[in-house]
Amino acid sequence: MELREHAIDAARERELDARAVDRLVFFSDAVIAIIITLMVLEVRLPVLPEHVGEAEVLRAILALWPKYLAVVLSYLVIGLFWTLHHRRFNWVRRVDATLVWLNLLYLLAIACVPFATSLTAEHPGRTSTIVYAGVLGLATMISGLLWRHVGRRPEIMASATASREMHLATLMSVASAGVFVVSIGVAFSSSNLAQYFWVLVFFANRAARYVYDWRHAGDRAAPDA
Amino acid sequence: MELREHAIDAARERELDARAVDRLVFFSDAVIAIIITLMVLEVRLPVLPEHVGEAEVLRAILALWPKYLAVVLSYLVIGLFWTLHHRRFNWVRRVDATLVWLNLLYLLAIACVPFATSLTAEHPGRTSTIVYAGVLGLATMISGLLWRHVGRRPEIMASATASREMHLATLMSVASAGVFVVSIGVAFSSSNLAQYFWVLVFFANRAARYVYDWRHAGDRAAPDA
Amino acid sequence: MELREHAIDAARERELDARAVDRLVFFSDAVIAIIITLMVLEVRLPVLPEHVGEAEVLRAILALWPKYLAVVLSYLVIGLFWTLHHRRFNWVRRVDATLVWLNLLYLLAIACVPFATSLTAEHPGRTSTIVYAGVLGLATMISGLLWRHVGRRPEIMASATASREMHLATLMSVASAGVFVVSIGVAFSSSNLAQYFWVLVFFANRAARYVYDWRHAGDRAAPDA
Amino acid sequence: MELREHAIDAARERELDARAVDRLVFFSDAVIAIIITLMVLEVRLPVLPEHVGEAEVLRAILALWPKYLAVVLSYLVIGLFWTLHHRRFNWVRRVDATLVWLNLLYLLAIACVPFATSLTAEHPGRTSTIVYAGVLGLATMISGLLWRHVGRRPEIMASATASREMHLATLMSVASAGVFVVSIGVAFSSSNLAQYFWVLVFFANRAARYVYDWRHAGDRAAPDA
Repeated sequence: MELREHAIDAARERELDARAVDRLVFFSDAVIAIIITLMVLEVRLPVLPEHVGEAEVLRAILALWPKYLAVVLSYLVIGLFWTLHHRRFNWVRRVDATLVWLNLLYLLAIACVPFATSLTAEHPGRTSTIVYAGVLGLATMISGLLWRHVGRRPEIMASATASREMHLATLMSVASAGVFVVSIGVAFSSSNLAQYFWVLVFFANRAARYVYDWRHAGDRAAPDA
Repeated sequence: MELREHAIDAARERELDARAVDRLVFFSDAVIAIIITLMVLEVRLPVLPEHVGEAEVLRAILALWPKYLAVVLSYLVIGLFWTLHHRRFNWVRRVDATLVWLNLLYLLAIACVPFATSLTAEHPGRTSTIVYAGVLGLATMISGLLWRHVGRRPEIMASATASREMHLATLMSVASAGVFVVSIGVAFSSSNLAQYFWVLVFFANRAARYVYDWRHAGDRAAPDA
Repeated sequence: MELREHAIDAARERELDARAVDRLVFFSDAVIAIIITLMVLEVRLPVLPEHVGEAEVLRAILALWPKYLAVVLSYLVIGLFWTLHHRRFNWVRRVDATLVWLNLLYLLAIACVPFATSLTAEHPGRTSTIVYAGVLGLATMISGLLWRHVGRRPEIMASATASREMHLATLMSVASAGVFVVSIGVAFSSSNLAQYFWVLVFFANRAARYVYDWRHAGDRAAPDA
Repeated sequence: MELREHAIDAARERELDARAVDRLVFFSDAVIAIIITLMVLEVRLPVLPEHVGEAEVLRAILALWPKYLAVVLSYLVIGLFWTLHHRRFNWVRRVDATLVWLNLLYLLAIACVPFATSLTAEHPGRTSTIVYAGVLGLATMISGLLWRHVGRRPEIMASATASREMHLATLMSVASAGVFVVSIGVAFSSSNLAQYFWVLVFFANRAARYVYDWRHAGDRAAPDA
């Protein structure tokens, strides 16, 4: 009987922990949903004279294309950030204060993406490119700190294999941050080139995964040796 | 004992899968809630001189009617999209990367509806009508791709009958996309007519359902023959 | 064994129904959260010259008081709508298409409150008062239709006593709608008076509850007679 | 059998209560997510002439620093409010009408933070500092009332120890409110100093915790004496 009560208590605590994680994820999702949606909603036509001709309306729409391009690119980048954030939080079983605050700082950095996006679209050039790279570099660095924190606290991880996943997440964050820092350098020679350079973040993440697989292949062989 | 542990593991995995689906649905709901609400909130009175008479205020409100009409129509259309998205996601048991990204693209298309709506209200004509039809056509096409993807992956569907439902969803999406593409053609003769034409999307969906019922009535008879 | 499987199937279906209700409630909550928050966030200081004195800033803030008053009143009214919507949805066990669409129309009416609020604050007078009363009257009427629909469908109610609760909800909605319709009449003699009149919605709801208690006291006595 | 049915009924009621708490927390989270995100999204570059030079863009960005500082500070303050609100709601098992309305008033006060923040950034000085301190003072006072209400209602608390936690929460809210009220006095000598003074809210919360620990250390010793 006592054993059973103990099991019920443990179950209740695990449920409270799970709820705390769910809420943090929910809050992050809500913030990212607002950021991503408002960024798209902000693409507006400039105010035109009331009875303007079809040709002018068409021209005004087409003149928005650099804004479209920037917003769609940012949408996909934040989308990638969101999917990674999500998948990795499956490995988190409990939240502590450091995790909550690192997550809040992470969301703050993501919330600066629309500013950088609109700057890039309206005043394309070196400054805007550096600001954009800086914002994403900051976001990925905070992300790296966050997953490194989780990876070092066995008590907040969901399982024994989580620590490896967190190691991978840290590597991927550092790789992404690296792309953005390098792109700041690239921006000094050509800001257009630096913008295309950001697409590399997709590949840098894959590269980090290969590095991780290669390392842990060795790890797994080692114990038998 | 081992059997029981196995059952617990399977239950835990199913729970993780269910949570991943719930989160995707939640995120989509949040994005659609933001889009739908901000579109309505954006209907504002133009700035009038401070101590303007009652008659002028009334006239300013009534002058907003094309905007009202466009917003209410768009609200109902996005509402329909949302109910369909919801009902169909009941058939999804697991999410994969393709589903996540097709869903993000779907939301991106829906997020362009307020832009098209405001364009239609402020600069009614061929261009705005084509943009509106284009946005909804894009949304329904992505929706078609999304449900076709789900319908072909038995491992991410909730049950054996889900594949038929996904087939229906694909048919309905294609039917809707068809209405919007045809309406682009209609817009070249009359943009007003094209706008009324969109109401057909409700009927096209019903038609798709009849086509589906008729086809599967045959399917069901076949095995006995 | 068969009995048990049947119980599991029934449990699963009940779970799916519960999830559908949860999602509808969640979506409504998200929409109302956005409406209520953006209405408050929209109270902004007009753009003042940059190095303006303390006295001017103070005067500009105080000049916002009619807007503050209107927003706080609307916040409380929407807050009341939200708490009622919430409490009543506890009685709903399943959703059907009519419920979904009545709920969407209800949210559309609520989403018009900030427009009416800002109109009331900026152009106080008969027109704005009538618009405000019209929007709230529309919302409460749709709410009445919604709860009447639920109250007549035993298959979507959570329990046998729910039908009485839905009857009460319908009465309360009609009572509130009555206040708003009467206040339109009041607005023709004095728009200020009509605005204070809206506070009566709190009392009209209580009155509806008394009418309901009095009626059902009779009902309960009747079967024994 | 009867005992079991009774247990099921009790479980169902507990589930309904838990859902009501979850929904209140969810609604609060959504409102705070919107406030926090829109406050950051509102930091925008002023409209510059179209083909402006890199130097001008850089200067315009750097000119935003007081706004950045104010927004980041407010983000962290609201972040702290959110984490406290969250952690404390773990102690709430049931909601009553007073709790719902105090929570709505609390959210209303938090929703005024962006107004105060933008005022502080755009018109730094005594007035804006007093408004900012007033808004946060109001929020913390309402928070104090809310937790005091919960702490006095055993029927809405999750456990026996919750009453102590609510006592601590009330102490912390009063301590924070104290900092803001004192800072209004400080603002009359220097508004800059008053702004730095707000950082003390972090320490006032810790102080409240020490006071609480010291008091309850005595409480715990007493029964044995």
